[in-house]
Amino acid sequence: VQTKPAVHQPCIKISIDVMGGDFGARSTLPAVVRALKTFNDLEFCLIGQEPIIQQILSKLLPHNSLLRQRYQIIHTDEYIKMDDPIEVAMRKKRRSSMRLAIEQVQQKNADVCISSGNTGALMAIARYVLKTINGIDRPAIATILPNQKKTGTIVLDLGANADCEAEHLLQFAYMGHALAKALFSKSSPIVGLLNIGEEVIKGSDMVKKAGLLLQQATENNLINFYGNVEGNDIFKGTADVVVCDGFVGNIALKAAEGVAKMLSQSIKDAFAANLISRMMAIFSMPVLKKIKTNFDHRRYNGAMLLGLNGLVIKSHGGADEFAFFHAIQYARQVVQKQLLIQIQQMIEETSVAPKTTLLIKATQTNYHST
Amino acid sequence: VQTKPAVHQPCIKISIDVMGGDFGARSTLPAVVRALKTFNDLEFCLIGQEPIIQQILSKLLPHNSLLRQRYQIIHTDEYIKMDDPIEVAMRKKRRSSMRLAIEQVQQKNADVCISSGNTGALMAIARYVLKTINGIDRPAIATILPNQKKTGTIVLDLGANADCEAEHLLQFAYMGHALAKALFSKSSPIVGLLNIGEEVIKGSDMVKKAGLLLQQATENNLINFYGNVEGNDIFKGTADVVVCDGFVGNIALKAAEGVAKMLSQSIKDAFAANLISRMMAIFSMPVLKKIKTNFDHRRYNGAMLLGLNGLVIKSHGGADEFAFFHAIQYARQVVQKQLLIQIQQMIEETSVAPKTTLLIKATQTNYHST
Repeated sequence: VQTKPAVHQPCIKISIDVMGGDFGARSTLPAVVRALKTFNDLEFCLIGQEPIIQQILSKLLPHNSLLRQRYQIIHTDEYIKMDDPIEVAMRKKRRSSMRLAIEQVQQKNADVCISSGNTGALMAIARYVLKTINGIDRPAIATILPNQKKTGTIVLDLGANADCEAEHLLQFAYMGHALAKALFSKSSPIVGLLNIGEEVIKGSDMVKKAGLLLQQATENNLINFYGNVEGNDIFKGTADVVVCDGFVGNIALKAAEGVAKMLSQSIKDAFAANLISRMMAIFSMPVLKKIKTNFDHRRYNGAMLLGLNGLVIKSHGGADEFAFFHAIQYARQVVQKQLLIQIQQMIEETSVAPKTTLLIKATQTNYHST
Repeated sequence: VQTKPAVHQPCIKISIDVMGGDFGARSTLPAVVRALKTFNDLEFCLIGQEPIIQQILSKLLPHNSLLRQRYQIIHTDEYIKMDDPIEVAMRKKRRSSMRLAIEQVQQKNADVCISSGNTGALMAIARYVLKTINGIDRPAIATILPNQKKTGTIVLDLGANADCEAEHLLQFAYMGHALAKALFSKSSPIVGLLNIGEEVIKGSDMVKKAGLLLQQATENNLINFYGNVEGNDIFKGTADVVVCDGFVGNIALKAAEGVAKMLSQSIKDAFAANLISRMMAIFSMPVLKKIKTNFDHRRYNGAMLLGLNGLVIKSHGGADEFAFFHAIQYARQVVQKQLLIQIQQMIEETSVAPKTTLLIKATQTNYHST
């Protein structure tokens, strides 16, 4: 019996930083086993402390399981802690499970790497090992947030770059465009610029300049710029891609998480308040379960590091098995959709586009009113 | 019979831009009547088109109602539309209901003014008419957001200042401190700096500098600086006051509104999905009503314009009667708590504080770890 997928179905190889995150091997390995059982086109490279990995896998998989043919283990004692400074992660731990996992991508032994470790360290090491794509000054972190249209909104940057220039936001738009094309199968995804009002005159000087660059890129048929969008538009689904600097993006994301948490707590409290309300909760259980699923941020686990010569996915530090499994699904999808090639092609196209002067019509109040 | 409050209870005078907001007199006047019935220490100055005001009030109050002794009407035909540019609002409409309402505060005919009109116009006119307090470079917009501790988190700035310097954030902290002292009756409210991580090294250059200034102000016993807080901390209630530039604050606020709206829609949809779930909704109605109340952003309507020589409250443009009533309650509270004097005293104190050199210990990773 041969579990390897047939020739027509290419295998997707994923390298896993087994030790990363708050729960390390206890969440990553059960998720890997679940993924092996769910998808027969996946192969894993598991990087971390081999004795621990073997011990946990011995409980999850029978000794003679055929699934064992679809992973290999690379042993290392070093791993990066959640509070390790970037310098320690970079210079002192050259054989960390995170670094070796990224190196698998660089050496083409893996199509994509996933880590729940420290974001700053992951970005720094990934950038050092993989290097940025020609034409990209700064890599960005992108994620897909849920919206009312149930289509998903890609938001970037989410914290890799606290201080940005307008040109960086333009590059984020190119990468977001490529990601949306790959994931949403849209030929011309709508790009919005996160701002504090719809009108062209709104926002900080940097954002106003970014608006002009995005407008110009649209005139060159590189992207489809909608104009300014506001914080609530992320969750309305006004645009497929929302670009912003990493400071604003990170705060918007965390504020959204904070509200969701507060509201789900208030629902729990309301139903737990007294005997009658607890009876109502039991009676309404099927609907409450559905609501709980909608509120569950674990389903959106997995942020892409974009702009590198290789695919790296950041899983939430607190990811449990369920959340990490979602990150694996996401990794599988971006490889299937050839995201890396799509981004590289996009950046090549933009490099040959004509540079025109930044001009905006004096009477124009909205970017999309032209 | 005398409806005027007794001598020991001073009257609070509120000027109302009756025509402001999406619904104008149809939401402001019913809220005013409700407030007249609820609080016997309020007097109103209603500014707008008198025929419309008289017509609506004739339906809300009997001709001989004693409540009619507690308001006066100032007629004007001009009012500011939601999409009027600031220049039009400032230069062409010198007798707008918004401007006259603010002038009532300047002329000491009112203790506070409320408008649901265009934020940009309100800030520009208020600044022009009332002028900023000595020692404040830029007024800010502050609001109270709900948190898990049910104490309320004051956040500022929410959009008055898209580009800020570190010194502005320090001034916001002073004003937020005074607002928290007044509203929460805390002698030493905790001030947090909105950032993308707890560590001192996190954030944009401007925010890092603001952190040092806030640290210094704490050493001078002017405020109680907690350190950096993240987007989710607003809703956790980590600090009583969260300061940020207007760009970030506006986007965090709107992102939070967007998530709350999406989630409340998902609850509605889940209960409306089919006959059985609709039955569950009927059975659980008392709890669902409670949840709906928790989700209701109208209860938080009313943002303060801080840093001016007079109190001005911005009500949400889409405020209905219920929301506008909340803004009136809020106006009553800030006058009772003598907010204006508290802010002026705070700024005076800061002006005599010693200026020390900005220094941070090399080993320090968190502001509050010293």
